[in-house]
Amino acid sequence: MTSKPLTWVPIGGLGEVGKNMMMFEYDDAILLIDAGIMFPESDMFGVDAVIPDYTFLKDKKHKIRGLIVTHGHEDHTGAVHHVIREFPDIPIYATPLTRGLVEVKLREARLADRAKVHTVNVGDRVCIGPFEIETFRMCHSIPDNIGLGINTPAGLVVHSGDFKFDHTPVDGKPSDFAKLAEFSGRGVLALFADSTNAERAGSTPSEREIEPTFEHIFRDAEGRVIVATFASLISRIQQVVNVCDIYGRKLAIAGASMNENVKMAQKMGYLSIPAGMLVRLEDAVKMPPHEVAIMATGAQGEPSAVLGRMAVGKHPLINVIPGDTIVMSAHPIPGNEEYIHRIINRLFQKGAEVLYDPVAKVHVSGHASQEEQKLLISLVRPKYFIPIHGELRMLKAHARLAREVGVPAENIFVVENGMPIRFREGVAEQLERIPGGYVFVDGSGVGDIGKEVIRERDALARDGFVIAVLRRNAEGELCSAPEIITRGFIYMKDAEPLLRNLSNAAAEAHRTAPYGVPEEIVKDRIVDALSRLIYTETKRRPIIVPILA
Amino acid sequence: MTSKPLTWVPIGGLGEVGKNMMMFEYDDAILLIDAGIMFPESDMFGVDAVIPDYTFLKDKKHKIRGLIVTHGHEDHTGAVHHVIREFPDIPIYATPLTRGLVEVKLREARLADRAKVHTVNVGDRVCIGPFEIETFRMCHSIPDNIGLGINTPAGLVVHSGDFKFDHTPVDGKPSDFAKLAEFSGRGVLALFADSTNAERAGSTPSEREIEPTFEHIFRDAEGRVIVATFASLISRIQQVVNVCDIYGRKLAIAGASMNENVKMAQKMGYLSIPAGMLVRLEDAVKMPPHEVAIMATGAQGEPSAVLGRMAVGKHPLINVIPGDTIVMSAHPIPGNEEYIHRIINRLFQKGAEVLYDPVAKVHVSGHASQEEQKLLISLVRPKYFIPIHGELRMLKAHARLAREVGVPAENIFVVENGMPIRFREGVAEQLERIPGGYVFVDGSGVGDIGKEVIRERDALARDGFVIAVLRRNAEGELCSAPEIITRGFIYMKDAEPLLRNLSNAAAEAHRTAPYGVPEEIVKDRIVDALSRLIYTETKRRPIIVPILA
Repeated sequence: MTSKPLTWVPIGGLGEVGKNMMMFEYDDAILLIDAGIMFPESDMFGVDAVIPDYTFLKDKKHKIRGLIVTHGHEDHTGAVHHVIREFPDIPIYATPLTRGLVEVKLREARLADRAKVHTVNVGDRVCIGPFEIETFRMCHSIPDNIGLGINTPAGLVVHSGDFKFDHTPVDGKPSDFAKLAEFSGRGVLALFADSTNAERAGSTPSEREIEPTFEHIFRDAEGRVIVATFASLISRIQQVVNVCDIYGRKLAIAGASMNENVKMAQKMGYLSIPAGMLVRLEDAVKMPPHEVAIMATGAQGEPSAVLGRMAVGKHPLINVIPGDTIVMSAHPIPGNEEYIHRIINRLFQKGAEVLYDPVAKVHVSGHASQEEQKLLISLVRPKYFIPIHGELRMLKAHARLAREVGVPAENIFVVENGMPIRFREGVAEQLERIPGGYVFVDGSGVGDIGKEVIRERDALARDGFVIAVLRRNAEGELCSAPEIITRGFIYMKDAEPLLRNLSNAAAEAHRTAPYGVPEEIVKDRIVDALSRLIYTETKRRPIIVPILA
Repeated sequence: MTSKPLTWVPIGGLGEVGKNMMMFEYDDAILLIDAGIMFPESDMFGVDAVIPDYTFLKDKKHKIRGLIVTHGHEDHTGAVHHVIREFPDIPIYATPLTRGLVEVKLREARLADRAKVHTVNVGDRVCIGPFEIETFRMCHSIPDNIGLGINTPAGLVVHSGDFKFDHTPVDGKPSDFAKLAEFSGRGVLALFADSTNAERAGSTPSEREIEPTFEHIFRDAEGRVIVATFASLISRIQQVVNVCDIYGRKLAIAGASMNENVKMAQKMGYLSIPAGMLVRLEDAVKMPPHEVAIMATGAQGEPSAVLGRMAVGKHPLINVIPGDTIVMSAHPIPGNEEYIHRIINRLFQKGAEVLYDPVAKVHVSGHASQEEQKLLISLVRPKYFIPIHGELRMLKAHARLAREVGVPAENIFVVENGMPIRFREGVAEQLERIPGGYVFVDGSGVGDIGKEVIRERDALARDGFVIAVLRRNAEGELCSAPEIITRGFIYMKDAEPLLRNLSNAAAEAHRTAPYGVPEEIVKDRIVDALSRLIYTETKRRPIIVPILA
């Protein structure tokens, strides 16, 4: 123990606290953990991704000693290249598979040369500034996932990372209970733990529990079996490989990202595929249907992924044919339900049999449920408990569990992104929020749109726009009836009378504007006249742009 | 039996087959069942509601003998006024509460005088043309819900309506098993049954099963209890009344639609509230918190309903105060999850305790699950089975259940909206699809926007628009640098260089257009130049409108 404080801050991301990025600061050293992206909410129109707002780090960049990445999922790695572009000198630490996935991103961003990436094997101890980090294995839906025991001069803190307690994981490597118990013996100042499934009673089933379902599906399918899942879900790919082996099917991979991941995982030994099983997709579609299985991307309803294109008959190689059995092996990410259901309906329409949760047990979560969360707290026995990786409602549920297993309510801190917790002399205290939030990535722009642009897109999405072009002569009089141009408003071919009325109203507003008033005022009068008329006639509020020419 | 055929058609609505409207046609007579609206899907930008496309009925309007409405929910009643506006002479048949709710809509649409509405009590027999209809009670999440046994010269068909088999409903009136068994004894040609929960194993719990949870909540809450649910969920309101009575709380109703419904249900005897319990909202907020409960609208995350306004601190009367217990007593309608979760998070943020499914058992579905669905089929023993009221995936799941309980696969018809089934001499056959789909209601317009307008709104929602105004002199040369106007594109104050480049590109495209080419071609060249430049610089694709003045 020392008198200097240790400060923890969950940084940015959308609702999920500390999921995409977090930091520890001690004296003149900062440790960053993860740098991921979030999918935008559905009313963040046109936004491609959301990244943590780490602007406040710019003033402290000389203090940053390293970035450690706990596993290879997008919500933990997807912003690494943004961070490295901003802070090129930060060394990155990651386990082998995570490193491989991070390096793909860095290469795409043409930053591979600039970044210094270090391999940490699961179980390694690594020193980053004053932080002596003991990595330990935690099961999750991707191999090489780690939790962190961080020894600091202010005490030992434990970070669960994303986790579940799977006693029979597909790769045979369960979570490191012994390490967690050892931490407990040494005394843990604070536990930061994954709250994703804190609303879910019981225990998350083992990955093994879906194997009988897959065996039945492959045994009974008379045609092709097409399994859609996350591109990075290596263990699911291994399970499909295993069952292909049992029933003698060839396997093709559809989707660029999944292909990349399979190649890498195979090369690095995380995926074992019998020789001759993998075939090219263009060959697979020509083989007898019952001899083939296909793994595909698009289980989240993404229209541009393989399954989404199949559903609308626009995949260049795979047409859905009656007899196909299509397995949706993923839980919907909240917000995607509608798109996933639409794809399921369309696949049925095309004659496929579609299997999905809850109709068939074809997926299990990668995150701990309530009983596992309680077990983690009981194993680690921390002084302080801080639920992370979840929206506020999940953190609240997790906090309730912590109270149930005996953590005093005053030692539990439910905070939001940007709200630091300071540990000084073994005592925790919540500090004032650091300004900031999250940053929109839109097209190639990072942070170049804000709430105002989103508001305009919202208005345009509802009712479109109306342009009134007023062409004038040298005397400032209209040379012709104002031209009305619209997009996304109403079907104008059927709206001749409205069109004429709008043109007349614009002309009238122009005509009656007092002589010599500034153009801006004339424009305001036109906008007023048109919006009133449009609202009366149609109950709509399009964006109106008057143009005086 | 007769040699004339009976034809059934599920009409319009979004994915849910026959939910919003269906018809039977026999000889020169048509019977319509229900006329409801659907909520738009989230990428139907700006659309307020979707109604069935019953255009094909215009040619047959002289044949329509009546519209019978099975219960008072929006998805079965919300388009009645549109139908009556189109076909003013159709008599409407409904049970008392349903009639009351339908009449509210007709009054709002100023059609109350024109419509002929007849009351049918649950269990009544009513003749509509050649259709002799036996109504029978089926439990659902609203009182006075009916199923229909329709005696036609071509045979007896049974329509379940929305239903569940609740043995202990709050109003003490279970589904009419005896009637279903009696139909069975007489021989049922076809059963049309509610598929909503066909993906859900087991039985839907009785409404009574949430009562212990409510009792605990009311017993333990130290402050106000605020229960949000559907405005029409009369039985839930009764349950809250009962528990208010036990714990001596006053009750206020927040939300215009719920207030309307409470008044009507009370007047008609569907809701029994002890004298003195109801207080006005403006009084309730001034009373000691532990003496008050409030029922509110907004459990589906609607931003303009009571709970949505409370969550952002914009309700004129109710501010969330620490100590409030807020109960979300509704299941999310698919597509609403994100908005509901956002509201829950915000209510937590404001210091309330929030209880919701799955954290607490505070809601049960109004629809039958698999075991009840199987029971219905076994009770009715129809020759033909047609799953309705669901998306294709649910119908497919329901069809699977029907096969399990012994309906031959060839006697099960899974069809989509617009696909008729004809029964002739006791044999069913599927006919060709009737053209049509559904109709968008947007503002005050019905059917005045179509897919093209939605596509434009989609593009505008993603990337906004860019206008280039090119002002020319009498010789057709530019008088000034083209003006660039944008909305929903990027934050233009930070984009001076891009703005200048766009202006220059527009000028260049204009300058290099061959002399004398039509204006349309000049415009196309400007659009090409600007979209190329914008995509290269920003990877965005806004709608571009060139204006030559």
